[in-house]
Amino acid sequence: MLSLEMIYDAQKVLKDVARMTPLIAAPKIGNNIYIKSENLQLTGSFKLRGAYYKISCLTEEEKARGVIACSAGNHAQGVALSATKNNISSKICIPAGAPLSKVEATKGYGGDVILVAGVYDDAYAKALALTEENGYTFIHPFNDERVIAGQGTIGLEILSQLPDVDAVIVPIGGGGLISGVAYAIKTLKPSCKVYGVQAEGAPSMLTSRQQHRPVELPSVSTIADGIAVKKPGDLTFELCEKYVDEIATVSDEEIATAILSLAENQKTVAEGAGATTVAAAMFNKFDIEGKNVVCIVSGGNIDVNTLSRAITKGLTKTGRITEITTKLLDKPGQLINLLQLVSDSGANIISINHEREDKKSGVNTCIVTMVLETRNLQHCDELLAQLQKAGYELFNC
Amino acid sequence: MLSLEMIYDAQKVLKDVARMTPLIAAPKIGNNIYIKSENLQLTGSFKLRGAYYKISCLTEEEKARGVIACSAGNHAQGVALSATKNNISSKICIPAGAPLSKVEATKGYGGDVILVAGVYDDAYAKALALTEENGYTFIHPFNDERVIAGQGTIGLEILSQLPDVDAVIVPIGGGGLISGVAYAIKTLKPSCKVYGVQAEGAPSMLTSRQQHRPVELPSVSTIADGIAVKKPGDLTFELCEKYVDEIATVSDEEIATAILSLAENQKTVAEGAGATTVAAAMFNKFDIEGKNVVCIVSGGNIDVNTLSRAITKGLTKTGRITEITTKLLDKPGQLINLLQLVSDSGANIISINHEREDKKSGVNTCIVTMVLETRNLQHCDELLAQLQKAGYELFNC
Repeated sequence: MLSLEMIYDAQKVLKDVARMTPLIAAPKIGNNIYIKSENLQLTGSFKLRGAYYKISCLTEEEKARGVIACSAGNHAQGVALSATKNNISSKICIPAGAPLSKVEATKGYGGDVILVAGVYDDAYAKALALTEENGYTFIHPFNDERVIAGQGTIGLEILSQLPDVDAVIVPIGGGGLISGVAYAIKTLKPSCKVYGVQAEGAPSMLTSRQQHRPVELPSVSTIADGIAVKKPGDLTFELCEKYVDEIATVSDEEIATAILSLAENQKTVAEGAGATTVAAAMFNKFDIEGKNVVCIVSGGNIDVNTLSRAITKGLTKTGRITEITTKLLDKPGQLINLLQLVSDSGANIISINHEREDKKSGVNTCIVTMVLETRNLQHCDELLAQLQKAGYELFNC
Repeated sequence: MLSLEMIYDAQKVLKDVARMTPLIAAPKIGNNIYIKSENLQLTGSFKLRGAYYKISCLTEEEKARGVIACSAGNHAQGVALSATKNNISSKICIPAGAPLSKVEATKGYGGDVILVAGVYDDAYAKALALTEENGYTFIHPFNDERVIAGQGTIGLEILSQLPDVDAVIVPIGGGGLISGVAYAIKTLKPSCKVYGVQAEGAPSMLTSRQQHRPVELPSVSTIADGIAVKKPGDLTFELCEKYVDEIATVSDEEIATAILSLAENQKTVAEGAGATTVAAAMFNKFDIEGKNVVCIVSGGNIDVNTLSRAITKGLTKTGRITEITTKLLDKPGQLINLLQLVSDSGANIISINHEREDKKSGVNTCIVTMVLETRNLQHCDELLAQLQKAGYELFNC
């Protein structure tokens, strides 16, 4: 059974393996907001902690059989590196559509990658079949007390790094991270709040909580792929019921804004799941005004192309990129007039597309789409108002 | 005159103002490579140190007159925040074309921003004219011993964080940072090497060293805008002559690759200037094999759009993005055949442009441009060879 002793034991085992990640003040995100930067953990996420502790607790016989796991992301890398460090072999079933970078990283840590056609569920089924067939030891990503104890070491570190902590915000996918952290925090400092965050498109723990039993969602969809889990574990569900004060959700746009803010203001790279906690703080999902708050940024393994897209989405949401589509007469000088207005407003042009053939345009007109760099939502609104006042018809703004 | 005492004094003054930034191991960049992360400094760069120390050393009368500075970037933010913290006013002349984000950040730190039409030199002239006119106190970005002493505190921190350090790699723009760091390191641990890095497109200190006097370059051009300086100071030139072991240059592509590697492997955001030192380590510009090396990542204030572009450039250089342009007959099924080859090779499609009207295409043909996600340069070469073997004519590959 999970206990404080087990979490302390995990801490001892992880001492020379996992990094004690820095707790960094984030004044630009909010007063008294701190980032527990598990994105700086080895393998780029907290998953190493649970996987390593679990593997180190296997019997010699279980180790000899080799381990297997199923994951498209962080758990894959955590298990691969943990197995390699324990000198045992690991098979990792990964859905074939996963980003090449994650597959390469898993191989790099010594994992024997098995690409499985289909989605996560198919890879999971394959892993179970291979376990059955070859007697491998299956390492569950979250519904396992040793795994949970490993993640719980983050709770111990937070209490040592910020004894005055009033609240900890934790992302929830399957619930392994928050179960361990909440257990450690609530046992050692019951007055500290523990809040959970899920993606709006994958609220499995929140739904389960509302229905008082683990519920499986028909589908999940979010840019926070690390927490896109359809159903919590029974063990993690119970621990959350007991130790988590409140659960809220954040939208993909809010997550993107948090990713942007972390990159710009904290100079740190977070993946979607990791940024949910910062999004929750930025968009006031919990009552944390004036409190010492730790946001666990659980990982940084974001595909760099996704990072670019998230940054663009965040810039758009905060009014720092504005896309304007309007119509011009097809005769000389029309574009200059438009650009003069834009220039006078202080907006910078990022790109322009000037096109004759378009369903929206008549024989006499052109469609112009401009992507502009603006200061904020107010600046963006002012510009749109000026353009309308000057007689420009605006589409999709 | 610059002295160790002055640097220790700066350290005392900065104690509650500047952060002691973390020194972080970067095993994926190289064995025994450490990052001194000044991108995590307040204001996002080391410039705060020198600016704050300089301003704190002003007489009451100089403070009362208010300070002025000229910068499109980090020095602007450093001076604005330092002045505000000292309860004095600051004017900051910024060239009008500077990114909005930097202008906004400077204002946010309490600086009174004066946008000057033209480039940096125009803003500099304006700042001098205003100084003349109104008696402001001018804060030079690098050619000032107090500023240099402030930056030198980084050298003290490195020696305390990694006493076994064998070499420190430092970016060079005007030379303020390396002058202070080299002075501190060489005075306290003469056996430790100090290497300087400049951008290939702005090698003013290297050129000056070769000609044994400060030389002004006719023009500079690099993505590392923070070190795009035409001429070193006389003071910084002398200090570099005396204390810097070697200077090398890195290309924009190498810098972009380092920015990408820092984002992916270290989960940290560096600006071009800050990434030059990591680029120098990655591309073997110095003899550092087997040594304990600290790369100073001097800042993280990169425009997020530039960050996206740098990531793309880095992915291309390392063979993880491949752009292929080829010709197809304009009849059904041609694109499928091509895509089958691409798919069989394991490359992912990022985007496709299939176009009839193009100068390169005849009446019967289409031009297809694909952007693909590939594993590495070898994978990319294999794919190109397979396409050629299958009879596709490749353009610009």
